Amino acid sequence: MSRSEQFINYFLSHREVLNELIEKIEHEHYTYKPTPTSMEAQKLVNHILESMYMFANIANKQQPGKLYEEEDSTPLPERAKNYTDKTVELIHALSDEDMEEIVDVKKMLGRDIPAGSLLHLGLDHEIHHKGQLFVYVREMGHTELPFYIRNE
Amino acid sequence: MSRSEQFINYFLSHREVLNELIEKIEHEHYTYKPTPTSMEAQKLVNHILESMYMFANIANKQQPGKLYEEEDSTPLPERAKNYTDKTVELIHALSDEDMEEIVDVKKMLGRDIPAGSLLHLGLDHEIHHKGQLFVYVREMGHTELPFYIRNE
Repeated sequence: MSRSEQFINYFLSHREVLNELIEKIEHEHYTYKPTPTSMEAQKLVNHILESMYMFANIANKQQPGKLYEEEDSTPLPERAKNYTDKTVELIHALSDEDMEEIVDVKKMLGRDIPAGSLLHLGLDHEIHHKGQLFVYVREMGHTELPFYIRNE
Repeated sequence: MSRSEQFINYFLSHREVLNELIEKIEHEHYTYKPTPTSMEAQKLVNHILESMYMFANIANKQQPGKLYEEEDSTPLPERAKNYTDKTVELIHALSDEDMEEIVDVKKMLGRDIPAGSLLHLGLDHEIHHKGQLFVYVREMGHTELPFYIRNE
C-alpha cells in the first residue's frame, strides 16, 4: 500500500466519525456555542473541513482555497461530503516521493516540513477539534454518540 | 534521534498542553460535567493519564497498572506530573527494534499491532480527550487557554 493510501485510511478512520457527528447537528443548532467565547458549531465544523483541505492542497503545492464562501448556506453534511471527497482526491495524488517533499509552511508553523508530516499535523488538528465537537453535540441533547475513531 | 526520542517529543508537545489545562481546574470543579451523561472532569483527566501510561506499559510488554487507586485524593496536577514522568520513562526504554515488536492487544483493538503503532493510537486518544477538556475548562470560566499543541 502506498503512503498516501495508508494515510487516507487513517484520515477516514477519523473523518467518517466527524461526518457522523455533523449529521446529528440540527439546523437550529448551527449557531450553538457552549460559552460566549467559544466558536459556534457551524464555524467549528467549517474550520475542521477547510483546514484539512488546506493542508492537502499545500502538500500538493497548490494554492490553499475554500469550496464555499463564508455566507454560503449549503447544509453542513453536504459540505462535509464534498470536502471529504476533494481532500481524499488531493491526498491520493501524492506519490511516496511527494510525501517526502519539503513544503513551504514556515509562515504558518515556523519551519518548513515534509508534506507527509504536514498531513499528520493536520490530522492531529482535526482530532483535537472533533473532540471538542463531541462535547458540543452531547450538549445539543444527543446521548448516542459514535466511538471517537471508526471501529475496524 | 531514536524513534523513542522522536515519539517523546511528539507526546510532550501535547502532554505539556494537557498539563497546563489541568493546572487551571480548581478543586471545586473536579466533579464538573457539561451534561448528565458526560464524564466528570477528574475522571476524564484520570482516564487520559492512565490510558497513555497503560499503552506505554503494554509497549514494554509489562502488565498495565495505575499509579493511584480510584479513591486517592492526590491533586490532579501532581498526578499529571507523576504519570507524565513515568510514561516518558517507559517510552524512553524502547529501542527502535522494540517499536517494531508486535504486542498483544487483540482483546482491546481486535488485532495485534507493533508497539510504535500502539503508542501513536494512544496519542490520538489523548488528543481527542484533551480537545474535550478544552471545552470543559472554558465552561469553568477560563478564557485564556493555551494553543492545542505546544508552540515550538
